[in-house]
This record gives sequence, structure tokens and C-alpha cells, in this order.
Amino acid sequence: MTLQPAPRDHRQAVRVGMLGYGFMGKAHSNALKTAPYMFWPDTAQVELRTISGRTEASVREAATRYGWSHFTTDWRDIVDDPEIDVFNNVGPDAVHYEPTLAAINAGKHVVCEKPLSPDLTEAVELERAATEAGVKHMTCFNYRFVPAVRLAHDMIAAGELGEIFSANFRYAQEWRTDPTADLPTWTGALSVIGCHAVDQARYLVGEIDHVSAVITNPVTSAERAEPVDTVTALAEFDTGAAGTIAATLIAPGRKNMLGWEINGSKGSLTWDLEQLNLLRVHRRGTKLEGFSDVIVCEADHPLVAPWWPSGHILGWEHGHINMWAHFLQAVVSDGKVGPEAATFTDGAKAARVAEAITRSASSGERTSIAGIG
Amino acid sequence: MTLQPAPRDHRQAVRVGMLGYGFMGKAHSNALKTAPYMFWPDTAQVELRTISGRTEASVREAATRYGWSHFTTDWRDIVDDPEIDVFNNVGPDAVHYEPTLAAINAGKHVVCEKPLSPDLTEAVELERAATEAGVKHMTCFNYRFVPAVRLAHDMIAAGELGEIFSANFRYAQEWRTDPTADLPTWTGALSVIGCHAVDQARYLVGEIDHVSAVITNPVTSAERAEPVDTVTALAEFDTGAAGTIAATLIAPGRKNMLGWEINGSKGSLTWDLEQLNLLRVHRRGTKLEGFSDVIVCEADHPLVAPWWPSGHILGWEHGHINMWAHFLQAVVSDGKVGPEAATFTDGAKAARVAEAITRSASSGERTSIAGIG
Amino acid sequence: MTLQPAPRDHRQAVRVGMLGYGFMGKAHSNALKTAPYMFWPDTAQVELRTISGRTEASVREAATRYGWSHFTTDWRDIVDDPEIDVFNNVGPDAVHYEPTLAAINAGKHVVCEKPLSPDLTEAVELERAATEAGVKHMTCFNYRFVPAVRLAHDMIAAGELGEIFSANFRYAQEWRTDPTADLPTWTGALSVIGCHAVDQARYLVGEIDHVSAVITNPVTSAERAEPVDTVTALAEFDTGAAGTIAATLIAPGRKNMLGWEINGSKGSLTWDLEQLNLLRVHRRGTKLEGFSDVIVCEADHPLVAPWWPSGHILGWEHGHINMWAHFLQAVVSDGKVGPEAATFTDGAKAARVAEAITRSASSGERTSIAGIG
Amino acid sequence: MTLQPAPRDHRQAVRVGMLGYGFMGKAHSNALKTAPYMFWPDTAQVELRTISGRTEASVREAATRYGWSHFTTDWRDIVDDPEIDVFNNVGPDAVHYEPTLAAINAGKHVVCEKPLSPDLTEAVELERAATEAGVKHMTCFNYRFVPAVRLAHDMIAAGELGEIFSANFRYAQEWRTDPTADLPTWTGALSVIGCHAVDQARYLVGEIDHVSAVITNPVTSAERAEPVDTVTALAEFDTGAAGTIAATLIAPGRKNMLGWEINGSKGSLTWDLEQLNLLRVHRRGTKLEGFSDVIVCEADHPLVAPWWPSGHILGWEHGHINMWAHFLQAVVSDGKVGPEAATFTDGAKAARVAEAITRSASSGERTSIAGIG
Repeated sequence: MTLQPAPRDHRQAVRVGMLGYGFMGKAHSNALKTAPYMFWPDTAQVELRTISGRTEASVREAATRYGWSHFTTDWRDIVDDPEIDVFNNVGPDAVHYEPTLAAINAGKHVVCEKPLSPDLTEAVELERAATEAGVKHMTCFNYRFVPAVRLAHDMIAAGELGEIFSANFRYAQEWRTDPTADLPTWTGALSVIGCHAVDQARYLVGEIDHVSAVITNPVTSAERAEPVDTVTALAEFDTGAAGTIAATLIAPGRKNMLGWEINGSKGSLTWDLEQLNLLRVHRRGTKLEGFSDVIVCEADHPLVAPWWPSGHILGWEHGHINMWAHFLQAVVSDGKVGPEAATFTDGAKAARVAEAITRSASSGERTSIAGIG
Repeated sequence: MTLQPAPRDHRQAVRVGMLGYGFMGKAHSNALKTAPYMFWPDTAQVELRTISGRTEASVREAATRYGWSHFTTDWRDIVDDPEIDVFNNVGPDAVHYEPTLAAINAGKHVVCEKPLSPDLTEAVELERAATEAGVKHMTCFNYRFVPAVRLAHDMIAAGELGEIFSANFRYAQEWRTDPTADLPTWTGALSVIGCHAVDQARYLVGEIDHVSAVITNPVTSAERAEPVDTVTALAEFDTGAAGTIAATLIAPGRKNMLGWEINGSKGSLTWDLEQLNLLRVHRRGTKLEGFSDVIVCEADHPLVAPWWPSGHILGWEHGHINMWAHFLQAVVSDGKVGPEAATFTDGAKAARVAEAITRSASSGERTSIAGIG
Repeated sequence: MTLQPAPRDHRQAVRVGMLGYGFMGKAHSNALKTAPYMFWPDTAQVELRTISGRTEASVREAATRYGWSHFTTDWRDIVDDPEIDVFNNVGPDAVHYEPTLAAINAGKHVVCEKPLSPDLTEAVELERAATEAGVKHMTCFNYRFVPAVRLAHDMIAAGELGEIFSANFRYAQEWRTDPTADLPTWTGALSVIGCHAVDQARYLVGEIDHVSAVITNPVTSAERAEPVDTVTALAEFDTGAAGTIAATLIAPGRKNMLGWEINGSKGSLTWDLEQLNLLRVHRRGTKLEGFSDVIVCEADHPLVAPWWPSGHILGWEHGHINMWAHFLQAVVSDGKVGPEAATFTDGAKAARVAEAITRSASSGERTSIAGIG
Repeated sequence: MTLQPAPRDHRQAVRVGMLGYGFMGKAHSNALKTAPYMFWPDTAQVELRTISGRTEASVREAATRYGWSHFTTDWRDIVDDPEIDVFNNVGPDAVHYEPTLAAINAGKHVVCEKPLSPDLTEAVELERAATEAGVKHMTCFNYRFVPAVRLAHDMIAAGELGEIFSANFRYAQEWRTDPTADLPTWTGALSVIGCHAVDQARYLVGEIDHVSAVITNPVTSAERAEPVDTVTALAEFDTGAAGTIAATLIAPGRKNMLGWEINGSKGSLTWDLEQLNLLRVHRRGTKLEGFSDVIVCEADHPLVAPWWPSGHILGWEHGHINMWAHFLQAVVSDGKVGPEAATFTDGAKAARVAEAITRSASSGERTSIAGIG
């Protein structure tokens, strides 16, 4: 008889408490459950200790569904629990600030969904607090962990595109096109999706120093308190590159198009979240070549080796899984979060750019990021 | 203090034993761990009871990694365990037959990776045994559970394409192009990938009654015992439609292209596994319209609702997860496996078509499926 | 014996004189030779009377090659010839103004390549002169005559996109990426290609009232007097729509990408000159539909009937041919040039937008078109 | 006064007579009028001497429209005219044989649209006659003259794809999907479009030695005498490569898709007539690269230099123009027609393959080309 009990997993267990149980709660629960075995033997075990949310029945069900050992309707139960290492805030934007700050003050490592806060002052305060407390901190700009985006970043960082001349970023969805649809309250296109475009711009090209922006509000309705805006901005990078950053949720046909094109002296790249495995690459040097379809699913590509063989494409959720693998590794090795992950510093910088875009749209003036926050 | 322990999951636990721990073992472990919470509250709990494999160190590690409670180097430990409900055979093709047959004879429900067996006689015997035993049985043609493929199936079944005129299926990879590469022994392009093309043809269009085939062996090398073949076949469907079925692992640039085009009197569809979320749809009726890019990631699309919002695309592994959700549901509801899933009957029928293709290529004659097996 | 001489063409002959014999001289000669038989029996005959250019040997050869009956090195020979109906100025930008003005003053109908003039004052003066003289006038924004662009225009004009929310236009080429290349002197990205993007914006969406722009000059070299610029602008339309207009000749991999995306309340369109026959169309109303590939080569599509059967695609030069068919028809029927063609009024309006972009880039301020010119 | 009359074109004038004035008459008239100035200073002048057709009013109008100096309803007027150098037969398939044979016997150079004849015996006889007479002869497989196809040919011929493993060719249109449409009589999918797929296979990959085929006739109607067939064939090449050749006019959504994929030991190519400027290229050697979009519109690409600058794409008709430039050059230089152009030998070989496909579909047997004709 060869049957034996499996040895237990001796890796360190990172104990997580989470605020939020909706779409993001599902994505994060999935990531926390999956990262430990996909990134084996590195990373860590995860203990899903406590999930928190406003509606007791819902949070209770989420706890059972995803395997959280406890649930609560009061996030302070997580902050106050000395057995919890990481506070993961994936609740609505409006509750990013207070609970996360409390968690920092309680000495927990903190993870927070984007935007770090829709309010610049709060975002800056969270960054300051996390940095001073010496805890590990991460803002969930999950698209940095899509292999095609990571490959693009690595190519640019290695100089394979040469000097960047222009860079255009756009996040377009159709989700709020219908003025009669019953949709949740929101904080505007910049907060909901535009901040991802801002972060991609910063991650791939570098710091933005000036913006000029227009925000229009073409869709309104009696049913909804808030108008639906479209954001269009010029971005000037400190390297001298120029480009655009745009966000809209009223682009019919665009299901989830976070797309960009980056042109440099040695080549160009394009990418689109709707086909997130595909990086389109052009390298100068021959008249023959155009853009090449690179399916970023080879073992030699970044972030792919833990997954499947060649051409077995990944989905949207893999960004979150890969991101958590990075954070867990940083926790158990006492290593650095970032620069591949966005920290609270990145979250605050994105908030500054967003604030500058809002101010420019309001004033009609070209606005310096240096003067913000 | 609102903190409470999470209620336990009261759903039935399906107890699984699995043979295999490689690529497929990883995909199935992941599916078994993920389906229960993604298809909440339906489906079942899963108890990962025992994993089996030849190499003790590897199977022990896999057990710990994926959370199987026991491991063994002898699959009979699974077959003999009265606490196991389902025997999941994801081992090499050559060990599909004997263990699966033993599991059937022990009264277990059985799941087997494709091909059901590379040997027709064995495949037919497995089908007969499973059917007679009254256990639930499934052959892992996972691509039936890609939402875009399911949508295509449902459209065709609903008559939206009208009468099918022609249908072409091809599975092309580049993986064995290099004659010097050190690759595992295999059983030919038909077994390894071609059977998926056969199953897609049967699932989407219907039964094949005649084939005419050519098999060439252009790549050989001193290093490898077996030649690398390419399979090209004409397929005649019993509805009168005609088309092709092809399989090759020496198509440079094709990372994982299982692709097809189906043309009917009312419209056409195309699909490619390398962009598996995308179904291209043409409906007759207007001169204006060409093919439309349908990203099959809307809540109203089949198999999508348990996952993410609009445009958040799925990856390759979701086929396996969706497939297991179906099988688990059948087990706990004592419902039917299929017709959306492939049963052992489908596995045996695919084996008959594969055998006919092989015989036709050998004889140079148009070969009837009716005379096979 | 049934052999008979062909009856002569009784249609009116429009007598043309042309300044320029390079790339554009070739495109226009071809258009003038082709339009009469492709747009049969409408339109007119064309008499290629005189071609003019600076270099005698070259212009002489061009005359023989394309079948112009006379040639000259002095464009005044055309202006002074009472036997010439139309003066077609396809010479370098710097010689658009004086000869065209002289032709207007001589009572000729005038056609001028874009930009009408790189100098705003000259463009405005040409428009005023042509309008006051009562001659027919056309600025060669040939892309208005690409069938896919025309179809887009007609759909938008018919309200099929509803209210336009956002519209982004970009003309990107790689042609000046190499700082060591020996290229002709130029007048900047806005003049050379950007004005096409401006015209597409005006033609498809409507008048622009404000712009905010950045112009960078990333490529310079000892070999060239002028820097190579990239132009990025925010555009605010008088309808309330917002968007971007960009132009660059240093985008590696972009051979000739004049591309745009327009989003409205009822649907969206995208187009790219590199695949000019293809209009991508999304119409709201069903969750199923994404963007559809419409190959604008059906007899029912605008501008296609004079050409080939379904799916026999057109090339770049067909824009010029179709444009000339329109102008010739206007001449012989004494009909209107435009609104489908761009007149000198459109040429002057494009010049105003270009000037506003230049001023905004210089001042760093949002600039009103109303204050220009 | 610098105005001077243009020097006359001193190039030799090739005098052409043409049978046919429909779609193909238009395409050939256009090609004959355009090639002389686009391929300047090489090639020749063309004298459009006589056009022939059955309906006097139509052929008379065509003569005036396109500039043929004479017209006739009796093609013998062309054959008998000693002032005519080339007989160009672009009439219906049924009148390819007799007039072309007569023209050969009269010592004329001959050009004939595809298929050389729908009847194998006639095709073979035309080839024999033309060869023996020593006249120049060309079958109009115009797609050999699409720059992307030529580039593919040249790459394969230069060994850039290595040994060819598999090659699949398909010509699909939707034109006869509607059983109630009033369409002209025809000679089947093989004659109308399939012969192009056969010629592409021979041109790009080499001679076919065996075929196995299925022909179905799914669409019939009271209105039409003939059924509408779909042709699907296995093709075995004499090099050992295998693949498929298919033709159908009942593929909804396919406007004009002549498409192929060729896989070799060193790389792969794909192409589709609906985007005829685009060659998709994969070269082995790096894990990073997938298929590259090569817009075959660069001066360094074959057949492009006479046309427009980078990225200014060509249309369908350019195949005919380029083809005629080749033939005219052969006439005036007394050079060879082919191998880049298809001769009558190629026309007869394509007819042999087509006949073998028809016989195989009828007999259900794998059929050798060697035994045909």
C-alpha cells in the first residue's frame, strides 16, 4: 500500500483580511486562493482570515463561498485582529481612506484597489502614512501584471524602443451609454477607469509633468444624479514625449478597451485589454517588417512560466493573481513591493495626475503636475 | 463585536481521485479548486482526496501544492478507495485504458482526458463498460466549454446558420517543428491535438460518415523514434455538408491555433483558440454587414455569467473549469453528462473518426466511418 | 464585315492645365485619365492640355508619359491660355498661392492640393478670391472620396450614430524617423499630413471651436535644416463632442495610418487608411454584437458602383479618381462642388484649425478658432 | 514663351484586339490604358484597336467609353486583321477555345482569361497550338501579380520558408448563396473561382500529383438550371507537401476571400485577397515573434516601385495592370512570358488538376494528375 497523506505546506502563511465582497472581492478571493499553488514553490500560503462588508447576509455568503474563516460587517474587526498581516481594501472608492489608514496605523501591510482615493488629499495622506509606518503597500493597478504589458515595460526599459516620441492611452467602455440604465453611483470616468490609463502611461513611459484636458458630460438623465463624463487630456512627459490620455464609459462597442500605442525612435508597440495576450511589436531596421502579433504566452515571456504551455492564453483575472504573487513574495521575503507593482506612491502620483486633469478641464488651462498636492 | 466564524459550505462534497500530475494534472487541480466557488451556489464542493502518479517525489509535491489530502504511486489505491466518487484520469494516453476500466468496474464515475484511448478497441471498450455500469462518464474535450464555442453551438443548433454547407477544422501548432528538440514521446498529431478538431466538427456540425485522408511525415530525426506527421482529411458529414479536418504540430508561428470556419445558408462563423474569447459572426440579410467581432464575455452569453463583467476576457483554463462545473453538477443532481459535455460515447466516436482517417491515409481510399469499430 | 470605327465620345471635354509632375502629378494625371471611362456615361471627357513644372527635362517627360499635349516651365502659360478650363495646382506647398490666385483672376476653375496654403493669410485670400470670382474650387482632401469614409459620413449625417460623444483622429507615418535620411524640405507634420486629419474631423463630425495643442520636435539632425515635429491636439467641436487630432511622421511601423474612431450615442465607427476598404461598424441594440468588418466594396455602397464587383477592393489612388469625377461633373453640369468634396472654404477652415493648433502649442493656451483668420 | 508641344512616345505600340466587354472587358481595358504610363519608360505603348462582342449596342458603347478605335460583333475581324499583334480573349468561358485557336493560327500573340477552357481537351489543344506556333501566350491568373503574392513566391523560391510541409488554399465567395437570385449561367465553382486557388497552389508550392475530392451541390432552385456546388479537395504535391484546395460561392460573409496558409520548416505565410496588400509572415528563430503584418507597398517590394509611396495601398485591378505590363514587355523585347506570369501551359496544367478533382469527386477515388489529359 503506497497511499500516504500529503505533507503539509511548510511555506509561511500570510494572513489576510479583506474589505469588500463584490466584483473585486471575487477577483481578489480568487487571486489569493490561486497564487499560492500557481507560483509554487515560491510565494506563500495564504490564510483567508476575515472578510468584511456592509450587508451581513452577503458578506456571510461570500465567506462561505470563498473560504474566508470569519466575516464581519465592521472592518475594524480586521484592523484590530493581531493575527492578520495584510489588510486588503477592495471596497467602494469612498471607503478606501479611513479603513486603510486605520490598518496602516495598526501596523498592517496594506493593499488597496484603485483609485487609492478619489480625493487627492486622502491619497497623499495614505501614501505618507504607509511610507512612514514602514509597512508594505500596493495600489491595485493590476494591468501592470498582464504579461504583454510587462513585456512592453521591459522592452522599453531595456531601450528597445529607443527614445519615446509619442504615447497615447485610452480606456473606453460602453457601460454607461444607456441613460436609462440603472447603474451604481460612481465617481467619474477618471476614477473608475481613467486612472488605469494614467498608471499605464506612468509605468510604461514615465512621469507626466503637464496636462491639458477637456471633460464633457454628454449623457445625463433624470434617473441618475451624476452626469456621465468623457475625459480627454494631452499629456506631456518629463522626457519630452507627448501624448494623450482618455477615458470614457460611453463608447458603444468598446466592451473593455484599455489600449495604447507607444512610438519610439527604434520601434513601436500597441496593446489592447480586449485581447490582452497580444502585444503588437514593430522594430525598425527593415522595410519589410510591419507590426508583429506577439502572443505573450511563451515560457520565456515575463509572468508566463507559472502558467500554461505556449499559446494557452490567459484571462483578465490573471493580472490580479500575478499581482498578489508579487505582494505575497514581498511580504514573506521582506522584499520590496514594486517597481513592477504600483505602491501607494504610485497611487498618489496617479491621483495627482487625475487632479491636474480635472483642474485643467475646469480652468481651460495647461496645468503642471508639480503644483498639485 | 460583529466578527463571526463563516458558516460551513453545506453543498455535497464530491470526492475525487486523480491519475496524473503534469500539465493536465495542474489544469484539473485548478479546475477542481475553482469551479466550486465560481459556480456558486450550484455545483458542489470538491474534496481533493488522492492524487496518483509514477514518480513518488513529484506526486508528493503535487499533493502538497494543490491540496490533495493523499498521494500514491499506485492508481489502484484510488480505485479501491470506497470514499472516492470520481476517478479522473489525466495521465499519459497509454494509461487511459486500464485504470479507467478498473475504476468503472469499481463503480466510480469516470473522467478521462482526450483521446479516450489512442487505440480504437480500447476506446470502444471503455465506452461500453461505462455505459453498462451506469456511471457518469466524460471525455475531456474541454473546448466545448469555451463560451465562444458554446455560443457557436447554440446558434447552429437553433438554426441561425440554416443548412450547413461547408465546415473546415484545423489544429495547428509549431511545437515539433525543430527536429533536434528533446520532446516527449507521442502518439501522433491526431491523438495529441487532432482529436480536438474531430470533436469540434462533431459537436458543431454533426456526425461524419466518410473521410479521405493524407498523412505525411516530413520531420524525422535521429534523436526521436517517431516521425512527426501532418494530417489532412476530407470530411463528409451525414447532413451532406463537406469540409476538412487537419492537424499538424509543424506549423511555424501557430502557437495553439485550433481554428474553424462554418458556412451555412443563413450565415457563417469563425473561431480560433489563440483568441478564444472571439467569435466572428456573419448573418445574411444585408449587403452592408461583414463578419462581426463578438467578444463572448457578456453576461447574456453562455457560460459567462459565473465569471467577470463585460469584456473581461477568459483564458484557456476556463474550459476545464466550466467543464468540471458541468460534471460536478451532473454528479450531485444525478443529472445527465452532456450533450454539451463529451461523454465516453463521444470519445469513442472521435476514436472511430481518427481510425478512419488513419486507414484512409494508409489505403488511399475514401473510408466509411460506419465500417469502423 | 461588321468592323466599324468607334463613335466619338460626345461628352463635353474639360480642358485641364496642371502645375506639378511628381508623386501628386502622377496621381492626378492618372485620375484625370481614368475618371472619364470609369464614371461613364456621366462626368466628362478630359483634355490633358498643359503640364507645368520647374525642371524642363522632367516636365517634358511627364507630358509624354501621361499624354499631356503641351508642357511648360512657366505656369503662367496655363493661366494665360484661354483654351484651358481648369487650373490644377499639385505643386509644392510654397507655390500654391500665387499661381492659384492668378488662375482665379483669369477666370479658371481651380483645384489645389492640400494644404490650400501653409500660410493662413494666403489660404484665406485664395478662398475669398475664388468665392468672389464665382469659379468652381476644390481643395484635394481626397480621403473624403474613399468609399468607407463616404459611408461613414453618410451614416453619421443620417443620424445612425446618434449624438457624437468623442472622436479621435490621427495621421501617423514612419517616413521621417531616420535623422540621417536625405528627405525633401517640408513644412511640418500639420501641413504634410495633419491637415488630412483636420479635414476628416470637420467632414465627419463638424466644426471645431477650440483646440489645445502640444508640438514637440524630437528628431533633428545636422543634415536637415528643419526639425521633425509631432503634433498632438485636443479638439472641441461646436456640437459639444471632444476628441484628439494628432500627426506625426516619426511613428515606426506606421506606413500610412490615417485612422480615427468616432463614438456616438447609437454606435461607433473606426477606419484606417492602411486598410482603406474596411469600415468597422458597431450599432447599439444587442449585447451580442461587437464591431463588424464592413468591406466597403458593394454596389450599394457609395462610390463603389462605377468600379468592380463585391469584394474587389480599391486602392489609394481611387480617392483621387472619385474626387475628380465629382469635380468634372460639377464643371460640365455647372453644379456645386461639395459638400462631399472640400472646397477652398474647407481648405481655409482647415488652415484656421492648423493655425490655432500652432498658436496653442506656442502659447500653451486653449485657443479659439473663432479668433483665427 | 516656354510652352511647347509634348514629344511623342517613341516606344513600340502593341496593337491589341479584345473579345469581351463586361466586367473583364472593363478590367482589361483599364489595364491596357494604365500599364503604359505606370511602367514608364519600360513596357510599350498600347493601341486599343478593336473590341468585339455579341451585342452591337454594348460593344459600340464600350469602344467609345474605353477608347478602342474599332468595334465588331464578329471576333474574326480581329483574327483577320494583320494590323493586330495580340488577341486578348476575355469573353465567357464557352468562347475561349475557338477564337483563341483561330488567333493562334493567324500568328497572333494570345492572352486568355481563366479558365483557359472549362473543357480539358480544349485547354490542352490551346496549349499545344500556342506552343507550336511560337506565339506568346498568357492565361490570366492575375493574382500572381498582386505584390503580396509575388513577395510570397519570391520568399518561397529563395528558400526562406525551408521545406514546405502543408499548404491550404481556399476561394470563398457568398455570391450564389441566395437560391432565388437571378444570376448568369456558370460552369461551376472550379471554373469560376477554384482555378485561381489551383494556380496559386502550383505557383507558390509546385506541381500537384494526386487529389482526392468531394463536390456537393447544396443549393438548387427552380429558377436555375444548374446546381451550386462546393468543392473540397486534398492535394498532394510532388515535393511531399500536402494540403487542401477548396472553392465555394455559397460562403455567406465571404465577399471575395481567396486565402491561403503555407507552412514550411523555416516559417509560414498567410494571405487573403480581401486584404490583398497584406502578407502575414512568420520566420522561425525566436520565441518572441508571431506573424507580422507586412503591408506589401514598399518600393523594395516586388511590383510596387511603379506605383505609390509607402503604405499607399493598391486595389484589385492592379493585378491585371501589372500582368499586362509583363506581357507587353515580353512582346516588345521578344522576351519570355512567365514564369511569373501563367502561360497556356499553366492554364492547361490547372485544367488537368481541375479535371482530376472532378473525376475524384465523381469516383470517390484518389486520382493521379499524371493520368489526366
